Amino acid sequence: MKLTMLYSFLKADIDLIEKELELAISSTSPSLRDASLHLLQAGGKRIRPVFVLLAAKFGDYKIDRVKNVAVALELIHMASLVHDDVIDNADIRRGKPTVKAEWDNRVAMYTGDYIFARALEYMADIENVEAHRILSNAMVELCVGEINQIKDKYRFDQNLRDYLRRIKRKTAILIATSCQIGAISSNVPKQVHEKLYQFGYNVGMAFQITDDILDFTATEAELGKPAGSDLWQGNVTLPALYALEDDRMREKIIRVNKHTPKSEMDEIITHMKQSDVIDRSHALSQRYLSRALHILDELPANRTKKTLRDIAKFIGKRKY
Amino acid sequence: MKLTMLYSFLKADIDLIEKELELAISSTSPSLRDASLHLLQAGGKRIRPVFVLLAAKFGDYKIDRVKNVAVALELIHMASLVHDDVIDNADIRRGKPTVKAEWDNRVAMYTGDYIFARALEYMADIENVEAHRILSNAMVELCVGEINQIKDKYRFDQNLRDYLRRIKRKTAILIATSCQIGAISSNVPKQVHEKLYQFGYNVGMAFQITDDILDFTATEAELGKPAGSDLWQGNVTLPALYALEDDRMREKIIRVNKHTPKSEMDEIITHMKQSDVIDRSHALSQRYLSRALHILDELPANRTKKTLRDIAKFIGKRKY
Repeated sequence: MKLTMLYSFLKADIDLIEKELELAISSTSPSLRDASLHLLQAGGKRIRPVFVLLAAKFGDYKIDRVKNVAVALELIHMASLVHDDVIDNADIRRGKPTVKAEWDNRVAMYTGDYIFARALEYMADIENVEAHRILSNAMVELCVGEINQIKDKYRFDQNLRDYLRRIKRKTAILIATSCQIGAISSNVPKQVHEKLYQFGYNVGMAFQITDDILDFTATEAELGKPAGSDLWQGNVTLPALYALEDDRMREKIIRVNKHTPKSEMDEIITHMKQSDVIDRSHALSQRYLSRALHILDELPANRTKKTLRDIAKFIGKRKY
Repeated sequence: MKLTMLYSFLKADIDLIEKELELAISSTSPSLRDASLHLLQAGGKRIRPVFVLLAAKFGDYKIDRVKNVAVALELIHMASLVHDDVIDNADIRRGKPTVKAEWDNRVAMYTGDYIFARALEYMADIENVEAHRILSNAMVELCVGEINQIKDKYRFDQNLRDYLRRIKRKTAILIATSCQIGAISSNVPKQVHEKLYQFGYNVGMAFQITDDILDFTATEAELGKPAGSDLWQGNVTLPALYALEDDRMREKIIRVNKHTPKSEMDEIITHMKQSDVIDRSHALSQRYLSRALHILDELPANRTKKTLRDIAKFIGKRKY
């Protein structure tokens, strides 16, 4: 089953957002337009807009208003990806060359800046000051998360707390913010939009842990990059952290650097997959999902609640 | 005389903003804090905060409210400088190594992103939607201006219109926005804050033209970098555009690239200073200043008006 099946009733609105995204990044500057379009067409799950729309359904849903929030959140996500690729020196994302690989670091930097500024234009229409406060705070956290990711690269003495704080900042907060601002834009009462934030936070944590698991367990064809790329690039994710607890795996992992040959990486991955580190990682992801589902129980009953539940469950099982 | 003398009655408020700027960029991440502090301590004229405060004086001036706008505008300016240095590959700014030179491009990129996000946090407190719309639009223009500057580098077939559009986006709009948002934050009526925008725009154009003149006429000690650096780096500014109209100067200028020896650059600068291109550039700057002063005449009389007039006149004569 595909994720999009779960929210097929939103298809018309999501198509509208997709068109608006294209409009948002169309620029009079050809190099900017090409780089942004390249990024847009590389696709992505658009889960932030989906959460914006679903959360907005808890209130006075007006697509013309909520659309701007959904576009803004996806643009911020896109902008952060372009800059991440510069920082990570990544050449491939979603199976396609990155902006920094296809053009260069400078183009990637200003493309990100431009998309980011466009996002703020879409947000500017939102009259609610709280929404602006939440979003700007999320962006500060996103930056700090990215910086910590650099600082923690190839640092094999880090602990679970370091990892969780990093993925919170890198992923969970923006998904939580998507839920909360989507709700705020539909005049959802405070006690509900705060719960939606908590729901988004827990789903976001589970989503990132699953992503980090898939980096080891999925195939190169599914990932669009070699398996184990995170570790190869020095990102010590949850499965690697668990593997570091085992002396035999630890010995190999702490020697990993960007020059480690693929055969050695493959050996590490095989060893990890034969151990319990993948199951343990799934278990932690499940704990976040349980919390998310628990929070959902406290929300007013409506059709959207069922969809959010299905998405949360899907994220725990997704294979790509 | 120094520029700061003109607004000495604002000293307490400007000191407050300076302290707030330091607070704004203090981060738990050491590398981020060091890079940001480095940038802050390199100084700068803080003219954007000054314009924010002065424009706010036309309304219900509350330092606690207007302070946040002033800090946000200066942070946006600082963030854009760090990213500009990456794009321009600049090693020196204001006589000090740039962030990208002292650390590297990646640190400069995320330092800029972080400062930018912090700016948005300061802006988030402003309840006026129009202010957000004006600012986000200014940021889009700032990005496009920077991109056009790259595109137009070493392009000696560009015309006055290209140059004016570029400095409008790069400088004038953010100064205009500082005036307008400062005024809006003090509940200044629309017809007045729109005039303040126009005032800021014209002063900003004059300010940038003067900057571009000084790049040729000031000494290396005054500039903190070699004279003629703009042209050397391919930025075709107003004096160079005028010089290109003269066949003898044109012949030398169109051969300029980053490998041109200093002796050749010095020859071009001497030739330019002996010609009328500096005077003609000053004349265009004066035209913008006259327009700014004319707009001031239409504004309500108060003490601030005199200060804005003095600053506008000072900008036309400044030597550093």
